[in-house]
Amino acid sequence: QMPRGNLETIHHRALVLAQLRKWLDSQKFREAFECMRKLRINLNLIYDHSPKVFLESVETFLRQLDSINHINLFLTELKEEDTTTTMYPCSVNTTGQSAPVACGKKVDIVCDALRCTMESMDQHKYCLSILTSHVKKTVPELEIALQKVHELRVNPPSAANAVSAEEALKYLLFLVNVNELYEHSLGTYDFDLVLMVAEKSQKDPKEYLPFLNMLKTLEPNYQRYTIDKHLKRYRKALHHLSKCGEEHFNETLNLVKDQRLYSEALGLYPTDSPQYKALSCAYAEYLVEQQQAEQAGLLLWRCGEATRALQAFVGSASWRNALCVAEQIPLPSDQLALLARDLAEKLIELRRYTEAAILLERYAKDCEEAISALITGAVWEEALRLVYLYNRQDIIETNLKPALLEACSSQTSYLEVQRAMFTRHKTRLAVVRELKEKARLELLDEDVPDCPEAELYSEASSVMTGSHAGSKYSHSNSRISSRSSKNRRKAERKKLSLKEGSPLEDMALLHALAEIIHSVDKMREEVHSLLKALVLFQFDGQAGRLQQAYGEALQMIEVALPEVWQEGLQQTQAPITGPNSTANSIMASFQQPRPSATQDSETPPPPKMRNGVKWKLSILK
Amino acid sequence: QMPRGNLETIHHRALVLAQLRKWLDSQKFREAFECMRKLRINLNLIYDHSPKVFLESVETFLRQLDSINHINLFLTELKEEDTTTTMYPCSVNTTGQSAPVACGKKVDIVCDALRCTMESMDQHKYCLSILTSHVKKTVPELEIALQKVHELRVNPPSAANAVSAEEALKYLLFLVNVNELYEHSLGTYDFDLVLMVAEKSQKDPKEYLPFLNMLKTLEPNYQRYTIDKHLKRYRKALHHLSKCGEEHFNETLNLVKDQRLYSEALGLYPTDSPQYKALSCAYAEYLVEQQQAEQAGLLLWRCGEATRALQAFVGSASWRNALCVAEQIPLPSDQLALLARDLAEKLIELRRYTEAAILLERYAKDCEEAISALITGAVWEEALRLVYLYNRQDIIETNLKPALLEACSSQTSYLEVQRAMFTRHKTRLAVVRELKEKARLELLDEDVPDCPEAELYSEASSVMTGSHAGSKYSHSNSRISSRSSKNRRKAERKKLSLKEGSPLEDMALLHALAEIIHSVDKMREEVHSLLKALVLFQFDGQAGRLQQAYGEALQMIEVALPEVWQEGLQQTQAPITGPNSTANSIMASFQQPRPSATQDSETPPPPKMRNGVKWKLSILK
Repeated sequence: QMPRGNLETIHHRALVLAQLRKWLDSQKFREAFECMRKLRINLNLIYDHSPKVFLESVETFLRQLDSINHINLFLTELKEEDTTTTMYPCSVNTTGQSAPVACGKKVDIVCDALRCTMESMDQHKYCLSILTSHVKKTVPELEIALQKVHELRVNPPSAANAVSAEEALKYLLFLVNVNELYEHSLGTYDFDLVLMVAEKSQKDPKEYLPFLNMLKTLEPNYQRYTIDKHLKRYRKALHHLSKCGEEHFNETLNLVKDQRLYSEALGLYPTDSPQYKALSCAYAEYLVEQQQAEQAGLLLWRCGEATRALQAFVGSASWRNALCVAEQIPLPSDQLALLARDLAEKLIELRRYTEAAILLERYAKDCEEAISALITGAVWEEALRLVYLYNRQDIIETNLKPALLEACSSQTSYLEVQRAMFTRHKTRLAVVRELKEKARLELLDEDVPDCPEAELYSEASSVMTGSHAGSKYSHSNSRISSRSSKNRRKAERKKLSLKEGSPLEDMALLHALAEIIHSVDKMREEVHSLLKALVLFQFDGQAGRLQQAYGEALQMIEVALPEVWQEGLQQTQAPITGPNSTANSIMASFQQPRPSATQDSETPPPPKMRNGVKWKLSILK
Repeated sequence: QMPRGNLETIHHRALVLAQLRKWLDSQKFREAFECMRKLRINLNLIYDHSPKVFLESVETFLRQLDSINHINLFLTELKEEDTTTTMYPCSVNTTGQSAPVACGKKVDIVCDALRCTMESMDQHKYCLSILTSHVKKTVPELEIALQKVHELRVNPPSAANAVSAEEALKYLLFLVNVNELYEHSLGTYDFDLVLMVAEKSQKDPKEYLPFLNMLKTLEPNYQRYTIDKHLKRYRKALHHLSKCGEEHFNETLNLVKDQRLYSEALGLYPTDSPQYKALSCAYAEYLVEQQQAEQAGLLLWRCGEATRALQAFVGSASWRNALCVAEQIPLPSDQLALLARDLAEKLIELRRYTEAAILLERYAKDCEEAISALITGAVWEEALRLVYLYNRQDIIETNLKPALLEACSSQTSYLEVQRAMFTRHKTRLAVVRELKEKARLELLDEDVPDCPEAELYSEASSVMTGSHAGSKYSHSNSRISSRSSKNRRKAERKKLSLKEGSPLEDMALLHALAEIIHSVDKMREEVHSLLKALVLFQFDGQAGRLQQAYGEALQMIEVALPEVWQEGLQQTQAPITGPNSTANSIMASFQQPRPSATQDSETPPPPKMRNGVKWKLSILK
């Protein structure tokens, strides 16, 4: 039946594979297995050929092989890869077998299926294969395997075909590194098992016996903790140590700090215990170091460490929490006022004027400072509210009105600067785009007739990037391929320069324009509230001019947007065609980097104007 | 010199134009003018051919024509259009003459230039042409022309070539409709002029004399007001009426109301006058009608109408201003408290809980209600601040904690719903895209060989929109051309439907996905503050689960974004090529609507995740 001669040639292998598939389809596993072993064909194919069929006929497979060695051979050869696609692709597409049978890893599926069947058939006979199926799993189940060996030792089976503990262990040591097995035996906390492994290993008893003896003297939880720590299983170690009583708490705390197991540790103690408090404090210290002072404050506060919590909240400008804690302590009123001033100062630095004003008004009882903070922050209405609440209308003349006029003129001149810059960038962008388009067309005219192949063409264009006059304005093609790499993209963005003639000047201009648009659009709320305040104090003239200036700025942007974004992106999107265009010339025109193609990586999206935010006063002309 | 025969044929006209251009270049205006008049060539060409040269040699032009009639003919034929591009395009591109010489309208530029030169040469001789130049301007300067006629009548010039007022008026009436001229003469407020025009016109003296006589009896300002009103020049009318003293103020107020000239009117009276107040009140009434109650309030407040201002501010939920006014009145404290409650209720309806709390706490002096509002609004920290400020820790157990747990579970289940919907839409989008791509490829395969012309092709595809199986998933081409029309685009968007198989289902799905992303991303701040509050009260378990759920939702979006937006848009951007592709087939593949091409009009831009907003607590696992 087998073809003779050199079976390693590809042609013969195809015949072999065809025969194998037939055998596997008809569940003649023994024939298939033996043939494969002889011809060194990867045994994974037995499963890969048809996972569903295999899983449904595991028992048949085991019965046909009828050899522990063969089963072990099959198990040890298992790999995640699908040999029907990698090593032995099948030219005839067999229907619907490509879908994976079950989710999960193939090796684990096969190991579990075989073990399950073997255990139900004859767990003594298949003992070694069962051990193999544990060891070969993606995450080897060494403890379970060891446990089974130990079971054999404690209760030697009476069955004739049973394997002795001795034999089983020897086999395990053949499969797994001895030190690894020793460590895992320790992990079972079963000293009999440890000793058994240790004896079988080449280890020196002087080395492990003292350690094992020492362990035996320890209290069970502490013993397990010691073993876990030895095996660097810190989470388990923490759990066992936490059960060892108060006298070991210092050790626990150190372990928690060393291994940063704060969250786990907090879960092991009742929230009203001193240990919980101690752990919270330690965690808080760590969090403060990590610039997470607010969360530290929360931990400290909830475990009753008010003073330290206050410190943490102050450090993180978490002023509301700080005040709550201060009231709870309770802080004497003069100290509370000082605290409030302190926090207000921080908030003003952070430009959080409204919050600073609450502190100054309510807790420092200083309405003047509060109003001053609000005026600085241009929070006009709130400033006015406090003015009337404290009957301090004098401040309107002395501070509020001058600040309003100052704000009005500074906003107006800011707008002027932004408008001038916008116009300059926009004009320059048009120039750059025209130059680039010209360069692109020139490039096409020159190169296409000589290079009929698009690939040749793109080479030519990248060669030209260095010195050709026009190429200054065309991206090098290598840019496109970099789209996937985020880091590289960031580096590219840094290269954006507004300097005239810089290679990505158009992108830099677009970014600059987007920034101007964003900052002008952002002013809506501020301008609106300023206009209202100006009108209230009869500064209609100034308000009218500001309203006009802002309206014109927005209008200018609105008009320019389609030109700067849409039109510019479409203009080079149309393929270059004409009576003389060929398939290649059209393709070549697409080989050229188009703004639309690189949009995702560089071109900022057209900024959105928040036209829904109404800012204009109808009472101003 | 002139070619004979039928000069109207295009061929001959080209010769004539060439000759004309030569003449104009050498400033032989007379020859050019006469030839053009004979051959009925538009006289605008004299200027259009070379605006710069013409404007520099206006005097030469006038001297060569040397005929008032000819000058008038030239002036009356002036039009905005540029005849060198519309009627007489020049095949040889003469260098740099396309740029406009000056900004402004061509007709106005020429009229002003000619008049200026004529006035400096001989204002009597050119009198009629000067009048023509006034009348022909874009906005006819009829008053000035009439004034000049009047001047002639009052001071008849002694110069021999001078035109009489009679003749000048007759000429004006020839140029301008008599009624128009009469109205404008009224507008000069010069009754001599009016009579002069009236007499020359065919008007019945019984018609105009009583009116004129009545006017003559009026006080000058009121007279002018009456005329302005007659001519519907309401702004001018207002200005004159405002000078007529208090006894006419009622009339002023009515005029202002009728014509909505509130802003103008306010500028005409001192801010401390009773008229200013009356106008402000009237304006405020109007603004309230226009849903601008806040601005009405500002006007009323600043003119001292505090009670009415208060009403307006309350109406617009402008609570800070309302309180200021209330304190200024001053409202008795019980009424102030009622007002505060009233405003707070409104703000709660508007979901402005923090502001409502300020009202309830400070002005209604009801800390319980304030805290309750804050809890409703999920403003946890601020609620806690008030709890400690008023020493009401009991509220923590009764209200705050239950609300926290409730918020946590509702956020968690909201996230679940959003995630499920996101997955459903995403999966469906992939299906729709695949179907569309398949339909597109089928369409190309079928049609290109039969329709070599791209235009024919696009016709074919639009014909198929109705019944063809695949076309269900391809936009009709008419969509692309509608890109410019904003209204139509809006209408199209309404057509977006998530119903399976709807023609723009992919767009609808993208919009729905963008909305989900936006709403999930928006939760960062709220989740962050909720997590902190939960941790503070030892609800670590609930907080941990919420944090995990939110983290997973964000992660899922982050992972899906490139697939949903970028990849989907690029996949159909590459031209369809292959060994069998031709120039036409490639072009045809671009004729097909591509997502990238329609992106501006329909595809929502990829939503931006605000990854800068940190929300996660490191103390939660």
